[in-house]
Amino acid sequence: MRIGVIGAGNVGGALGRLWARRGHEVVFGVPDPQNPRRAALLKSTGGRTRVAAVADAAAFGDVIVLATPWSATEEAIRSAGDLTGKTLIDCTNPLAADLSGLTLGTSDSAGEQVARWAKGARVVKAFNTIGAENFGDPLFGEQSASLLIAGDEPSAKLTVTRLATELGFEVVDTGPLKAARWLEPLAMLWIHLAYAQGFGPKGHAFRLLRR
Amino acid sequence: MRIGVIGAGNVGGALGRLWARRGHEVVFGVPDPQNPRRAALLKSTGGRTRVAAVADAAAFGDVIVLATPWSATEEAIRSAGDLTGKTLIDCTNPLAADLSGLTLGTSDSAGEQVARWAKGARVVKAFNTIGAENFGDPLFGEQSASLLIAGDEPSAKLTVTRLATELGFEVVDTGPLKAARWLEPLAMLWIHLAYAQGFGPKGHAFRLLRR
Repeated sequence: MRIGVIGAGNVGGALGRLWARRGHEVVFGVPDPQNPRRAALLKSTGGRTRVAAVADAAAFGDVIVLATPWSATEEAIRSAGDLTGKTLIDCTNPLAADLSGLTLGTSDSAGEQVARWAKGARVVKAFNTIGAENFGDPLFGEQSASLLIAGDEPSAKLTVTRLATELGFEVVDTGPLKAARWLEPLAMLWIHLAYAQGFGPKGHAFRLLRR
Repeated sequence: MRIGVIGAGNVGGALGRLWARRGHEVVFGVPDPQNPRRAALLKSTGGRTRVAAVADAAAFGDVIVLATPWSATEEAIRSAGDLTGKTLIDCTNPLAADLSGLTLGTSDSAGEQVARWAKGARVVKAFNTIGAENFGDPLFGEQSASLLIAGDEPSAKLTVTRLATELGFEVVDTGPLKAARWLEPLAMLWIHLAYAQGFGPKGHAFRLLRR
């Protein structure tokens, strides 16, 4: 395939390099194609890629990889020109500059609201990211679903970990209660897959793989 | 442990039943403890649980399971009374009544914004939920990380599926581009675990298990 990669950082660099090695034609589109620091990237692809202006990379690719920092995304798309009919792989995330969160949505959570309402309670977000149909049977083949928990009180999280482990879950502590901002959308993804996408309420679950 | 389960529906019913079977003392707290339809729940626990008013269940439990519909949550907590020092397991999600989304946050996404900017392009959200360090090495032991994609154009998703499969990913099609609203917070969860929680950028990845 002919692939135009807009953005030559961490994400775009990795994808362009990997697909070039597999025989695809890759052009990186950057705002500064003459910048000498692009040489290392090109060298890492064994000369099988080239660097061009964003518009040239976009024109070249049948597939466009959009791998820009969120703040640079609108301008990059404007520079790309006409994208009609092209497959555009959007790798962006609307991250705040300090990586503290997303700039679209998720500035609060039910977990945090519950903690504000339930004054004094040691709140642990848990059992919200997988359907209750699986609570008694968290094994998928030989692997257990992960139970993702979040909370500000370590001893309360230990209690929940013990209770969840009894049911056969592998517990993943995702940190402070604020992480409920990410666990609640994950619940929404699970619900969406179960019902809108037809995976079914006992059909699927997330597991966090570790190396 | 002494467990008070607030809400006796799908989630609370399952957890209370399972923990009662494992020897814990479980009291379900509901607004209508005299309602005859609670009999089936109690029967399913072999008489090892009881049903009480929300305040009684909350007073009983050292651990409180909060498993209410979001719209009933504030009132349930108010009915529970003093929760100081109790471990409260928050299983709620701030779901819209029609399950179409969360009522806190995530009413838009970078993916949808990109599609509005890149008119005519066939946008596929992809490669945003796992760090680029893993793109060339998506195997964790014998299991590959899942690559979650979303988009409105099936043929564009096929193209992306082929490209991601070449890299060794197992691709999960999460449906329309709107699902980027759930994939972007999942990216945030991955980033949070990698950096704030110390799992590291090559240390972890999500896999969708299927039965």
